[in-house]
Amino acid sequence: MSLKSIDDLFLHGVKDLFYAEKKLVQTLPKMAKKATSTELKQAIEQHLGETQDQVERLERIFVLLDETPRGKKCPAMDGLIEEGKEIMEEAEDDDVLDAGMLAAAQAVEHYEIARYGTLIAWGEELGMSEAVQLLKESLKEEKNADKLLSSLAEGNLNRKAA
Amino acid sequence: MSLKSIDDLFLHGVKDLFYAEKKLVQTLPKMAKKATSTELKQAIEQHLGETQDQVERLERIFVLLDETPRGKKCPAMDGLIEEGKEIMEEAEDDDVLDAGMLAAAQAVEHYEIARYGTLIAWGEELGMSEAVQLLKESLKEEKNADKLLSSLAEGNLNRKAA
Repeated sequence: MSLKSIDDLFLHGVKDLFYAEKKLVQTLPKMAKKATSTELKQAIEQHLGETQDQVERLERIFVLLDETPRGKKCPAMDGLIEEGKEIMEEAEDDDVLDAGMLAAAQAVEHYEIARYGTLIAWGEELGMSEAVQLLKESLKEEKNADKLLSSLAEGNLNRKAA
Repeated sequence: MSLKSIDDLFLHGVKDLFYAEKKLVQTLPKMAKKATSTELKQAIEQHLGETQDQVERLERIFVLLDETPRGKKCPAMDGLIEEGKEIMEEAEDDDVLDAGMLAAAQAVEHYEIARYGTLIAWGEELGMSEAVQLLKESLKEEKNADKLLSSLAEGNLNRKAA
């Protein structure tokens, strides 16, 4: 893919996030199944629903761009998920497992927050108000998911595992 | 590595960040060299100095933990850097290159913000006040770096490339 303009970068970024969000839709149910804390399980399940909405929003952006929805392999998200899997395999205690998964989920959220933020900045420069609106909805959900995970992390989970 | 307690998770996280920060120390000079905007070049060079300080802080935390400083392969940071490299190779325009590198740098900052935040939460639960203080200094630098990159992204760079 050759990148000649911000339009190209924008499309590149949308493809990257489309791959990442679709990969998450596959991964979150496995995490929810493994989680032992009810609160963490619920938080992951809630975010699965949001992630499915985010995939749909990206599909709408592809339509706005007159492009076929198609992901682009995203090594960062692959790496983030690999790290989460490692923690899930290496944890030998339920509370440690929950705390580690929570950390992995927050790293994923932050990756997405960065990418949505960038796409919004580029979309605004390109005057793509409809796409920007969709991206802002997803960014808001990601930030809320991160806050919820933070409140869980600062609450019971860590104390239980310490 | 078997993870039996939050202490194990904390050490695991410190090793992950140690690998990530050291990898960045190698990568940032290449990015600074490629950057065409003077502001972006300066921002990257400034953050290289901070990253070297962050490596030293992690070394001090290893000492506090009575552990030998040793990194643990971090697939997420490897993936983030790989994505940055892709952009650098595929950009066919100086301003697009700068905008793409800026986005890659912000994704890296967000990864680190998430990891430092998690380590601070765990360190507080473990009562490791000296380590927490060091981690908070690094987190503050990462957040400031992200803000500086955001202000560059919203300013000239994107407009030039659009």
